[in-house]
Amino acid sequence: MTAEGLPMVVPASDLPARVRIHEVGARDGLQNEKTAVPTEVKAEFIRRLADAGLTTIEATSFVHPKWVPQLADAEQLFPLAKDVPGVELPVLVPNQRGLERALALGAERIAVFASATESFAKANLNRSLDESLAVFAPVVRRAKDEGVHVRGYVSMCFGDPWEGAVPLHQVARVCTALRDMGCDELSLGDTIGVATPGHVLELLSLLNEEGVPTNTIGVHFHDTYGQALANTYAALEHGVTTVDASAGGLGGCPYAKSATGNLATEDLVWMLHGLGIETGVDLGRLTATSVWMAERLGRPSPSRTVRALSHKDQ
Amino acid sequence: MTAEGLPMVVPASDLPARVRIHEVGARDGLQNEKTAVPTEVKAEFIRRLADAGLTTIEATSFVHPKWVPQLADAEQLFPLAKDVPGVELPVLVPNQRGLERALALGAERIAVFASATESFAKANLNRSLDESLAVFAPVVRRAKDEGVHVRGYVSMCFGDPWEGAVPLHQVARVCTALRDMGCDELSLGDTIGVATPGHVLELLSLLNEEGVPTNTIGVHFHDTYGQALANTYAALEHGVTTVDASAGGLGGCPYAKSATGNLATEDLVWMLHGLGIETGVDLGRLTATSVWMAERLGRPSPSRTVRALSHKDQ
Repeated sequence: MTAEGLPMVVPASDLPARVRIHEVGARDGLQNEKTAVPTEVKAEFIRRLADAGLTTIEATSFVHPKWVPQLADAEQLFPLAKDVPGVELPVLVPNQRGLERALALGAERIAVFASATESFAKANLNRSLDESLAVFAPVVRRAKDEGVHVRGYVSMCFGDPWEGAVPLHQVARVCTALRDMGCDELSLGDTIGVATPGHVLELLSLLNEEGVPTNTIGVHFHDTYGQALANTYAALEHGVTTVDASAGGLGGCPYAKSATGNLATEDLVWMLHGLGIETGVDLGRLTATSVWMAERLGRPSPSRTVRALSHKDQ
Repeated sequence: MTAEGLPMVVPASDLPARVRIHEVGARDGLQNEKTAVPTEVKAEFIRRLADAGLTTIEATSFVHPKWVPQLADAEQLFPLAKDVPGVELPVLVPNQRGLERALALGAERIAVFASATESFAKANLNRSLDESLAVFAPVVRRAKDEGVHVRGYVSMCFGDPWEGAVPLHQVARVCTALRDMGCDELSLGDTIGVATPGHVLELLSLLNEEGVPTNTIGVHFHDTYGQALANTYAALEHGVTTVDASAGGLGGCPYAKSATGNLATEDLVWMLHGLGIETGVDLGRLTATSVWMAERLGRPSPSRTVRALSHKDQ
């Protein structure tokens, strides 16, 4: 599964030497599957992703099974995933109860999932924006007291399906609130995939002005309108070194009605490797993993790179 | 078919104020269809593209029908297309015979299709690279004598399916040869879609060093590995103002075995409009045109933007 020495490696000036990929396929991807994937398949997926060189693999979510039945096996899966050496395994926690479940299993990294808009806070969390932040505050505090690394997702940063455009200062307010709580890292989510590069750069600059350092910011783009990689390139130019992606392009947002969701890790790796940026990822193994997973799920990967590379083998 | 005021318009610094889209769907797209599209449907497609605001629409190819039977109706189609007001209609000509056919119908813009590599020259043109350039020289000269604008396509600029990596100086040699013949404009083709942004910037810089001005260079990216829009963004940063794209993502290269080919015009327009770059295109009308064409062809458009926007109407 190679591409005849392609892409040609040609660095661009002023880009980071290394990017950390925050792999979200096992959580963000599989939580959007209609039927739950068996626990052993999930664990094998995580093992294969680690084998392909990914070092940050978001494993699951300790949300109530009523809301996300696809990840109801978090208690069974997490210990299996923890056995994989050399990998950080952040888990999503929605509230104090979820945090306690995660801590009891020895989770060292958690993530909370906030919204930049009232509409999505209401739809996804059934709370107002400020109420949802108030729920997260003690969760983040307790996690920090336990020495746990905390990521704060901010969804709908660049547009909202109900509200349309989202004011930048509103996004910045949620970001600084999460920082003030103690979040070590933010992930700026373009949940409906509408952002374009100028918009990304403007938000990053505003966050810097508000005292949020670039090295604490990750970007999380969706490919709904095909913009994810262009936006990622702009973010790299700004100095961002953490990029969220999903192996094979698994998943998306159930509220964004479109065929395509997360940026595919393979499409990202193709670009990063072409730019001479280190990721530690073996693209052939990663592609093989996504092909394997696509077979388990019974439908082809939407990743362009997975399709192109796996087609070559036929 | 709108997107609730999205994308938010946020310009990035140092990008062009306006981009000319060279629409290739009617030629590059339809020449790759298994069965020929009826002439009247092609003419209606061109009319609808013009209605959507596209001003440069590559109409057809005056190649021998034996090689591209899909475009065997060039003589019938071109006069129909010429009736569309306010639109430039370049046509591809492979040789002197094709040029004469185009001139007889009053074509004011032609394009020749060169290769940056020996293997593709052999596969596509059945000649060596230098032999193919020798065929084009008198064609370009005669066209210029007639006051016709000449575009020179250079395919496989960033990688070749047989040769792998393509040396930049070899691409530059073909480009300067075409310029020396009299080509007014070049189109740098990533025929198998493997380029990444640093590679694009390096070739553009090299061409500038070789005396090729940026305002005579168009870029022609394929989305085979999902890189087309990131590469386009890098090219815009370099100052490129002519971008090739295909409505609905029609077409691709028959030698590149993959599901996806040309950059979709809609995905490009979404980015350009988000960046506040003028195109003159009405995205809603363009999307409607691609949905209409997809119905004629009996399969959905691969454009992410077309899928997202047309889904909203259902």
